Amino acid sequence: MATIKDVAQLANVSVATVSRVINNASNVSNNKREIVKTAMEKLNYYPDANARALSQQNSKTIGIVVADVSDPFFGAMISAVEKVAYRTGHFLLIGNGYHDENKEYNAITQLIEHRCSSLVVHAKMLSDSALIRLMQQVPGMVLINRVVKGFEKRCIALDDRYGSYLAVKHLIQHGHTNIGYLCSNHDISDSSDRLQGYKDALLEHNIDIDDNLIAISSPNERGGEQAMMSLLERNRQITAIACYNDSMAAGAISVLYDNDIKIPSDISIIGFDDLLLAQYLHPKLTTIRYPLQTMAEQAAELALQLAKEETPPANLINVYTPTLTKRFSVTQIK
Amino acid sequence: MATIKDVAQLANVSVATVSRVINNASNVSNNKREIVKTAMEKLNYYPDANARALSQQNSKTIGIVVADVSDPFFGAMISAVEKVAYRTGHFLLIGNGYHDENKEYNAITQLIEHRCSSLVVHAKMLSDSALIRLMQQVPGMVLINRVVKGFEKRCIALDDRYGSYLAVKHLIQHGHTNIGYLCSNHDISDSSDRLQGYKDALLEHNIDIDDNLIAISSPNERGGEQAMMSLLERNRQITAIACYNDSMAAGAISVLYDNDIKIPSDISIIGFDDLLLAQYLHPKLTTIRYPLQTMAEQAAELALQLAKEETPPANLINVYTPTLTKRFSVTQIK
Repeated sequence: MATIKDVAQLANVSVATVSRVINNASNVSNNKREIVKTAMEKLNYYPDANARALSQQNSKTIGIVVADVSDPFFGAMISAVEKVAYRTGHFLLIGNGYHDENKEYNAITQLIEHRCSSLVVHAKMLSDSALIRLMQQVPGMVLINRVVKGFEKRCIALDDRYGSYLAVKHLIQHGHTNIGYLCSNHDISDSSDRLQGYKDALLEHNIDIDDNLIAISSPNERGGEQAMMSLLERNRQITAIACYNDSMAAGAISVLYDNDIKIPSDISIIGFDDLLLAQYLHPKLTTIRYPLQTMAEQAAELALQLAKEETPPANLINVYTPTLTKRFSVTQIK
Repeated sequence: MATIKDVAQLANVSVATVSRVINNASNVSNNKREIVKTAMEKLNYYPDANARALSQQNSKTIGIVVADVSDPFFGAMISAVEKVAYRTGHFLLIGNGYHDENKEYNAITQLIEHRCSSLVVHAKMLSDSALIRLMQQVPGMVLINRVVKGFEKRCIALDDRYGSYLAVKHLIQHGHTNIGYLCSNHDISDSSDRLQGYKDALLEHNIDIDDNLIAISSPNERGGEQAMMSLLERNRQITAIACYNDSMAAGAISVLYDNDIKIPSDISIIGFDDLLLAQYLHPKLTTIRYPLQTMAEQAAELALQLAKEETPPANLINVYTPTLTKRFSVTQIK
């Protein structure tokens, strides 16, 4: 591959002049600029982004750490951050935490080694103290979907517990009292907070909590199928189900159809997240809206501002409130 | 942020020694290695990946260009390439082509500027000659979902036309002759090849092609809804529908339900791609399998091999054959 020296030689200018053209500096004549650009094209010369990053100690990349790129929830998160990156002339560098403490740590430090000055991090397994240590070193590091004490202004999160409470209250308002819950087996606050919201709503309405109505599995379609089968096997005459997320709801719906159980007339079901999927299930899924796109864009913008030592807007929303999206999977009990 | 000089000073060794520790060189005593590592930790020093990339002219990143990260098809592609990257100790740098010629070109050249020596590129708008010029400069650049003449061994693609033929033949074998087609409005070979496959199957079975049975829209859920509505409005007594992809099928199914048209007893429907979504539609979607994960992993491995100037395996599959996945959305005509 051609080097900057080759370009300087062909254009008959100094290396410094070529460098000025690459960096769009003003102190180069238009004539020289054209000659250099022509030489760059002729030689297929590509300025080295790593050299630029090194000299400026800024890689013009936004780093994002997610748990799993193949999960549509994180796909939507990446897409939102990518939109901000594209708009602001940044590239996106992606690290996978795989819901593992060590892998989360490695993903973050590798992004730091790549000198991503802006980081949007979804890490649920690392301890608060480990995250605090990293955030102290990288001013442009922002957490999404988690709140760490003392760093609330650098966290963008959702009130998971309230969202789940809202879902179960909606079922209770339709006359349901025998309500199953499909719970995530990931050992993170999302799982426990959403489970707690389910319990909050039951307790508020004087409905006893029955552990036999709670089935725990992976927070995806396959896990939803397994948890739903497990609930049906227990024969608890459930009339409604709240789910950890839409993917588990999709799996549950598939199992209910296989068993000729009609939705919502036999069993009502409610999801969480409001992924695109929710609109294309049958019946269209009533669910809790996670304003993921807004939150992820917000996190990316905040990370860029903090990296540039700009003051974030005073009215910045750090904890978002989930809302109910009514569709056709919940009905009044017969 | 701490520099390599700070580390050398604190550890009381030369910068060269610190560098050797960072690069895991063997000619450092264990004692010195420990002292340097302790100093690095104390100072929160992170070796600069850009400096390493610059000195080695290899960024240890795999670059991938996709059309749109938020599309689940590309999400699955990224996930597969990421698996290879993770296994081989690489990072993933993502560029978005947005189905636009200039943006595709910019995404590729920016990855080159970041010195990604391995590139997996999904670019459908750039001309063959533009791609050839880039591939000649970057030995580790591999195309996915496209074949460019003269570079067949660096392309991993699917026989789209045959896949669509297979889908429509399956409908014809179930007695259908009045078969609608939901076509993608993207001006790329995937669209025209899959449409041609539909026509191939009809012609082979002496069924006239009726342009009124073809509805064109965006290749996503919303586009599937629009195309399906448009077909229904034309009142052509369709008994079966072949779709450009599963996402359009999901949209079509939603519209059919809204209009009390039963699937498959009133209308049979078949998708293309076999995304995870297909298994959670109701009824479970019969579709054409796109072995995307295998193909994307293969493309990433090929890109790594070519970048290292290794000879790819002689039995490398460059054009994959789609297969039929039978589920419950197609039935014999009444």
